[in-house]
Amino acid sequence: MTLYMNLAQLLTQRIEQGLYRPGDRLPSVRALSIEHGVSLSTVQQAYRQLEDHGLAAPRPKSGYFVPTARELPALPAVGRPMQRPVEISQWDQVVELMRAAPRDDVVQLGRGMPDVSSPTLRPLLRELARLSRHQAMPGLYYDSLYGTQALREQIARLLVDAGCQLSIGELVVTTGCHEALSASVRAICEPGDIVAVDSPSFFGAMQTLKGLGMKALEIPTDPLTGISLQALELALEQWPIKAIQLTPNCNNPLGYVMPEARKRALLTLAQRFDVAIIEDDVYGDLAFSYPRPRTIKSFDEDGRVLLCSSFSKTLAPGLRIGFVAPGRYLERVLHMKYIGTGSTSTQPQLAIAEFIKGGHYEPHLRRMRTQYQRSRDLMIDWVTRYFPAGTRCSRPQGGFMLWVELPDGFDTLKLNRLLLDQGVQIAVGSIFSASGKYRNCLRMNFASKPTPQIEAAVRAVGSCARQLLVENPHPDADL
Amino acid sequence: MTLYMNLAQLLTQRIEQGLYRPGDRLPSVRALSIEHGVSLSTVQQAYRQLEDHGLAAPRPKSGYFVPTARELPALPAVGRPMQRPVEISQWDQVVELMRAAPRDDVVQLGRGMPDVSSPTLRPLLRELARLSRHQAMPGLYYDSLYGTQALREQIARLLVDAGCQLSIGELVVTTGCHEALSASVRAICEPGDIVAVDSPSFFGAMQTLKGLGMKALEIPTDPLTGISLQALELALEQWPIKAIQLTPNCNNPLGYVMPEARKRALLTLAQRFDVAIIEDDVYGDLAFSYPRPRTIKSFDEDGRVLLCSSFSKTLAPGLRIGFVAPGRYLERVLHMKYIGTGSTSTQPQLAIAEFIKGGHYEPHLRRMRTQYQRSRDLMIDWVTRYFPAGTRCSRPQGGFMLWVELPDGFDTLKLNRLLLDQGVQIAVGSIFSASGKYRNCLRMNFASKPTPQIEAAVRAVGSCARQLLVENPHPDADL
Repeated sequence: MTLYMNLAQLLTQRIEQGLYRPGDRLPSVRALSIEHGVSLSTVQQAYRQLEDHGLAAPRPKSGYFVPTARELPALPAVGRPMQRPVEISQWDQVVELMRAAPRDDVVQLGRGMPDVSSPTLRPLLRELARLSRHQAMPGLYYDSLYGTQALREQIARLLVDAGCQLSIGELVVTTGCHEALSASVRAICEPGDIVAVDSPSFFGAMQTLKGLGMKALEIPTDPLTGISLQALELALEQWPIKAIQLTPNCNNPLGYVMPEARKRALLTLAQRFDVAIIEDDVYGDLAFSYPRPRTIKSFDEDGRVLLCSSFSKTLAPGLRIGFVAPGRYLERVLHMKYIGTGSTSTQPQLAIAEFIKGGHYEPHLRRMRTQYQRSRDLMIDWVTRYFPAGTRCSRPQGGFMLWVELPDGFDTLKLNRLLLDQGVQIAVGSIFSASGKYRNCLRMNFASKPTPQIEAAVRAVGSCARQLLVENPHPDADL
Repeated sequence: MTLYMNLAQLLTQRIEQGLYRPGDRLPSVRALSIEHGVSLSTVQQAYRQLEDHGLAAPRPKSGYFVPTARELPALPAVGRPMQRPVEISQWDQVVELMRAAPRDDVVQLGRGMPDVSSPTLRPLLRELARLSRHQAMPGLYYDSLYGTQALREQIARLLVDAGCQLSIGELVVTTGCHEALSASVRAICEPGDIVAVDSPSFFGAMQTLKGLGMKALEIPTDPLTGISLQALELALEQWPIKAIQLTPNCNNPLGYVMPEARKRALLTLAQRFDVAIIEDDVYGDLAFSYPRPRTIKSFDEDGRVLLCSSFSKTLAPGLRIGFVAPGRYLERVLHMKYIGTGSTSTQPQLAIAEFIKGGHYEPHLRRMRTQYQRSRDLMIDWVTRYFPAGTRCSRPQGGFMLWVELPDGFDTLKLNRLLLDQGVQIAVGSIFSASGKYRNCLRMNFASKPTPQIEAAVRAVGSCARQLLVENPHPDADL
C-alpha cells in the first residue's frame, strides 16, 4: 500500500470508530502532514480518496468535514421464504429480461451489465484486435477442453487474492460464470434433488435448477450478513439436500459480503452434513473493501467447494469467459462442460490472459470499484429522494446492484409494465425467488457513470411507484 | 452457373455415365470449343475443374485423359451394434482426445479441425479486428438470448440453400453446434430416456446423452446411404424412443449424404411414431455436390425437427458460434440455452454476420470444398498405398473426415498409443459407438493442405498398423 492509502485507511477507521462524527471537522492537511511525516500532497491524495468514498467533504476555506449523513432508507426485511423445497417458477419474466438486446431508447436498469466504457479496458481491446490481425491465428482453433494454459495461469494468480492456492490443473475455463454454475450443478445433482439457496438469489442460477428438474429450498438471508446458518442447519436436518448454492461476496441482489467467520461456519456445516457448496464469486473482485474478501473455497480442505466466477462483471460480459475450480468434482465438471459447449472460445481467453499479464487488470479494478462505490451512494440518494416513503434498500459492499423493497403487497410486475412505456427497464423481484416471492422488490443497476438520463430513469421508477400506491393505497388488500 | 461450370458438369456426367472410361482420351480443347461455341480458355477452365475432381488428367502433348482408377479399398462394413439401448461408455478416450491443445510437434489427424489458413478467411479476421478497435464496442455487451439479429438474418438466408424457409424468430444462436445439440436433447428428453442414433455416430453428441443420463440405441448405418430405416422402424416398434439423433449430410464419421427419398421416409417414420429428430447439419455446407443437399428439416411440416449447425467446420471452431432451429421446441431450447451459458459471445457473431453479408462466405466455401475433395482423393490414395491389405475406407461426399476399418479384432487403442510416440494422433473408432464397438476403426482428418509431413503421418499410421498385425496376425483370437 502506498503512503496515501495507508493514511486514508487510518482516517477511515477513525471515522468508522466514531472518533470523528458526522459534522465534525477533520484534522487539517498541515497537521496530518506533520503528525505522519508525509508530504502535503500525500495528505491531499488521502483526503481525495476519502471524498471518493463519501467519508469527507471539503468546505471552502475551512478544510475537510465528515459529511452529515442524509437519513438512509431502512434495510430490506429478511425474507420469509417457503420452508420446503419447491419447483422453480418465473421463467417467463426471466426470458422477458434476457430477450432484450441493448437499445439506445431504453435505460436498462434491469440487467447485470458492468460499465464497459472505461479507458482502462483499452489494452484488452487492443489485444483482441492484435490477435485478429494474424492469419493462422490461434484464436481460430479449438482450444483444450480445460481452457488455454495462459489464461489458467493468470486466473490461478488472481485467486491468491481471494485466499485460494490452486494449480492450473484444478481450473476449467467456461463460457461465462453461467456455464460454470450449470456444469457444477449438473456434476453434483440429479433431477429431483434439493439444492439450498440464499434468498433472494441470482435468477440465472435458479433457472438452471429449474431447467434441470431440481428443487430449490430457499433459506432466509440477512441483508448485511447473508444466509441464515440457523435456518440452513434446520433445513439440512430436515431435507436430503445435495448442495448449497450461494453468492457470499457482493451478493446478487443484496450486495452484502458475508463475514469471514460465517463463511467458515457455513463450511463446517457443509462438512457435517456432507453436502457440496457451489460458490458464485462473480462479483468478488468488485468488493469496495481492500483487500478483497476471501472465498469459502479458500477455507476448503476436502474439495467440496466448487468456486464459480467469470470476467463478465469485471471486464465485459460479451466475451463470455468464466471459470470454475471444481475441487473433487473436476472430472464430472469437465464432462458436463464438454457436453454443454465443448471448448470455450479461444481468442478472448488469450486476450484476457495478456491483459492480466500486462498488469492492466488491477488498475482497471481499482477504477471500477471507486466508480461503482460513488454511483452506489448516488443511487441510494436518488432512491431516498424519489421513492415513496417507507421504501427500503440494500447497502451494497461491492458490485453494482441495488435491491429496493417497496411496501408489502406492492406489485413490481405492474410497475415494470408502466415503466417500459417510459423507456425504463428494471428487474422485478419475483425472479429472485424460487416461489415467486419478493413481488414488492426490484433490482437496479448502478454500473453506468451517473447521467441526467439515468437520474431521470430512477426518478421515473419512483414516481410510477408513487402513482401505483396512490391508485391502490393498501396494496396488501390486493393479495 | 458460368459457362465453364456448365461444360465441366456435362463432361462429368458423360464420364460418370461411362461414355468415356478410365484410360480414354477426352475431346480436345479445340474440339470442345467449336462444339459448344465457347472460348478455348473456358474449356481449359472446365478441364482444370475436372482435374481438381480427379476426373481428368493431362498428358503432355496428348491432351486430357480419364485417369486409370487405382483399385479403391472396399467400403466399411455396415455395423452390427447392440440391438438394445445402452448407457454410453468411452468418456476417458474422448477426454484424451479433447484435452490436447494444438501442438506443433504432433500431427493431429484425430480432431475435427477445418483448415483455417485459407486467404478467403481474411475478411473475417479484418472484421474481428475492426470490431475491437471501437471503444464502447457492441461486442462487449450481453447479447439478446436469441443471438444478434444481424447474424440470425444471415443464417436464415443461408438456410434457404438447405431447403429451409425460416424466420429469424425461429433461430437461436448457440455456443457452437455442441450447445445446439445439447440444448436440443435437454429440451426433449429426461434422464433414462432412449435416443436412437446412427452408428458409428459423432462422439460429442453421444457424450451429451451419457452426461444427461440418457440411453443410446445404435441403429445399423450404411456407409453410402445412412441409417437403416428398416432397423429404425423395428427399434421404434420395440422401444419407447424419444428422439432420433443423426447427421444425414456429410456424416461424421462416414461421410455419406443420405439420399433425399430416404430423408423423407425417415421423417414419415418419425411422424408415425411421434418422435423428434435432432438433425446435425454441421458439415452440410461442405458437401462436394452442387447445390448442397437438403436437410430433413426442409421437409418438416409439424416442427418436430431440431436443426443444429455451426460455423465451426465452415469458418473456424475457435469462434464457437453455432445455431439451432428448434421448431416446436423453441421455448424449451431457449430455456436450456439460457441455463447452459446465458447469451452467446457477441463479437464473433457480428463479425460472421458481416462476413456473410459482404459476400465472402460463398467463395470461401467453394474454395474449401475443392480443397477438401482433392485431399480426400489423396488421403484415400495414401490409405490404399500405406495401409495393410484388407483395409476398408469410406467415400466422403463432403467434409474432411475419412473412416478407416482395419481387420476384425484389430485394436486401434493400441495403435494410438504406438502413434503418440511418433507424434501422430488419430481418433479411435470406439468413441463413435455407445457400446465401445468399432475398436478396429479409426477416423482421420484430411482438412489440411497435403504436405510431406502429413503424408508421413498417414504412412506412420499404416506401418504401425502393419506392425501390430504382424505381431498378432490373428487379432480375432485376442477377443
